[in-house]
Amino acid sequence: MHNRDLPLADPHRTDSVYFDDGKLHLIDQTMLPSESRILEIESPREAAEAIRRLSVRGAMAIGVAGAYGVVLGAVSVEGGDTADVAEAAREAIAMIAGSRPTARNLFWALERMEGVLKADIEERDPQELIEMLESEAGRIASDTVETNRRLVDCGQSIVQEGAGALTHCHSGALAALRYGTALGVLIEAHRRGKGIHVFVDETRPLLQGARITAWEMEREGVPYTLIPDSAAGVVMSEGRVDLVITGADRIAANGDTANKVGTYTLAVLSRAHDIPFYIAAPGSTIDLDCPDGAGIVIEERSADEVRTYRGVLVAPREAPVYNPAFDVTPADLIEGIVTEKGVMSPPYSESLSVFGRVPPKGNSA
Amino acid sequence: MHNRDLPLADPHRTDSVYFDDGKLHLIDQTMLPSESRILEIESPREAAEAIRRLSVRGAMAIGVAGAYGVVLGAVSVEGGDTADVAEAAREAIAMIAGSRPTARNLFWALERMEGVLKADIEERDPQELIEMLESEAGRIASDTVETNRRLVDCGQSIVQEGAGALTHCHSGALAALRYGTALGVLIEAHRRGKGIHVFVDETRPLLQGARITAWEMEREGVPYTLIPDSAAGVVMSEGRVDLVITGADRIAANGDTANKVGTYTLAVLSRAHDIPFYIAAPGSTIDLDCPDGAGIVIEERSADEVRTYRGVLVAPREAPVYNPAFDVTPADLIEGIVTEKGVMSPPYSESLSVFGRVPPKGNSA
Repeated sequence: MHNRDLPLADPHRTDSVYFDDGKLHLIDQTMLPSESRILEIESPREAAEAIRRLSVRGAMAIGVAGAYGVVLGAVSVEGGDTADVAEAAREAIAMIAGSRPTARNLFWALERMEGVLKADIEERDPQELIEMLESEAGRIASDTVETNRRLVDCGQSIVQEGAGALTHCHSGALAALRYGTALGVLIEAHRRGKGIHVFVDETRPLLQGARITAWEMEREGVPYTLIPDSAAGVVMSEGRVDLVITGADRIAANGDTANKVGTYTLAVLSRAHDIPFYIAAPGSTIDLDCPDGAGIVIEERSADEVRTYRGVLVAPREAPVYNPAFDVTPADLIEGIVTEKGVMSPPYSESLSVFGRVPPKGNSA
Repeated sequence: MHNRDLPLADPHRTDSVYFDDGKLHLIDQTMLPSESRILEIESPREAAEAIRRLSVRGAMAIGVAGAYGVVLGAVSVEGGDTADVAEAAREAIAMIAGSRPTARNLFWALERMEGVLKADIEERDPQELIEMLESEAGRIASDTVETNRRLVDCGQSIVQEGAGALTHCHSGALAALRYGTALGVLIEAHRRGKGIHVFVDETRPLLQGARITAWEMEREGVPYTLIPDSAAGVVMSEGRVDLVITGADRIAANGDTANKVGTYTLAVLSRAHDIPFYIAAPGSTIDLDCPDGAGIVIEERSADEVRTYRGVLVAPREAPVYNPAFDVTPADLIEGIVTEKGVMSPPYSESLSVFGRVPPKGNSA
């Protein structure tokens, strides 16, 4: 892995994840906004590690990064035959699947890559298979962009003129490629002149709201206010919030939704203040094989994310910590789910069924 | 002001606020737990500044510190007459009253000091008046300790064997002298062998939970788990919380309660999970002149508390921030208010009326 120091990454000109010159390029999200640089990833192991440590984060971005990580596995085979390339790709899939458990989109992307390997590949030479894998990863990226473009458009129906909106974590261009999801809906509303104001939860422990969402609001010129997560209830009780909207990492068939820890609290607060609470996520986040939230694996992350900030100890050195990265919001607290096919309403077990399962063979090359 | 580097402050042997050798001594709470040192305060201006920057924090601790700050004003008069001493004390009261607006106890303490000045002081010589003021400040401190001792005992009725308790911010020995309030109730339950477990909200932005409550839990040997504020909803939904208890900065006559921002969110979450939510605070926190929460002034603190952590920028440099230090929990979300006179139940407009107004002349010397 190499860090390319110049030029600094600009997510408004550069997708946060892209493949170029045989390498996976990522805008490193861990140091934003104080440092903005591009990582060059050259192996599946480096890709898995970049996902694990959140250099690339956001459900859709890690899906695309994971797909290209599989390509890196395939190209690493030197002088082997087609079966060797396929085996290396499968090993890459297994390695990358073990990086983070919750975001559905990562598995969706890996299943599509797996679909290429299940196709009739024996007749291909090794280079052809590599090209098929790279093409599929490219389609995953372009599908993600196009899906989000449509999602952001569909979401306009829920954002009224002059609305106060509250969001949590980060679901913009860096997380979801170019258009974003929940944040993309709000940015598009701003671009259309709706005169909205966005309250941005800072989103402890890793401060994606303060570090990344606020930064994206500044670059887009969207009027916003950064708040500690604990102040969300205050701005709601002051009547300044007309809707709450967040992204999602996995949505079960019944609409129960896993997203960044704190989302559930916002949904409870929204209900108490009679404020509509929305999720925005594409079909690739929906897991129809998972009947409800009880089936969603919630990643628990390192205690040091809570005990320290950038090396500064903020708690007793050995403090016992519970640090779930996500929580599950029950479907009955969700007013609607904004997707690329429109805003889905309850009962979600019916409305979400328009999203079929991932085809077993994603390869159409 | 001097920093005494040695010995390091131990709040279990040393009150967090005490007067000695003509100086106000404070355990500096801003750098805990990484540094533990005692500040020596020599003027009302230094006292006000120590309160403002949270070197001393916690409603009761700042009340006691404020009272001694008035003494420092009185002793600063050299060669003046009794009227000069009284005038200096009044100036100190005005200066310290302007330090922080929300905690009732500060004004309660200053009103008691004012009461000394309203007594029949013309017949006293200057040194006698100074001694009267110092005696009153000493009584404020000892009353605070005794009140909290009784409060902590009264609170045992709400903590069952094996309970999981969740708390926010810090309401222990450093905040409230020796016994604490909400945290004191939990520590006493632990000492009595109830086998409780405490979930500690880290309490952004200034992390009093992570820095101070967790540290006090370690020293007392209370089993605890530190969580990001956003994870409180998760541990509640997992069934691990049997009661929520926090301190208070000001309680209105109808029971509406101002406390550290995030408390209101906990109360809403508690209601949603059918978990009893308690406040613990002495009569000196109750403001019978304030009919309800709408009358409580909420301090808004610096944007940089949210934008930075110990000098590290965690958001855009000029990010607009809303940083209310407190929020107001409506009385109807509060199961009971633990005081030194027992656990008060709704309707609070009746039960809290047992606490009379502050006598206009607190001086009984």
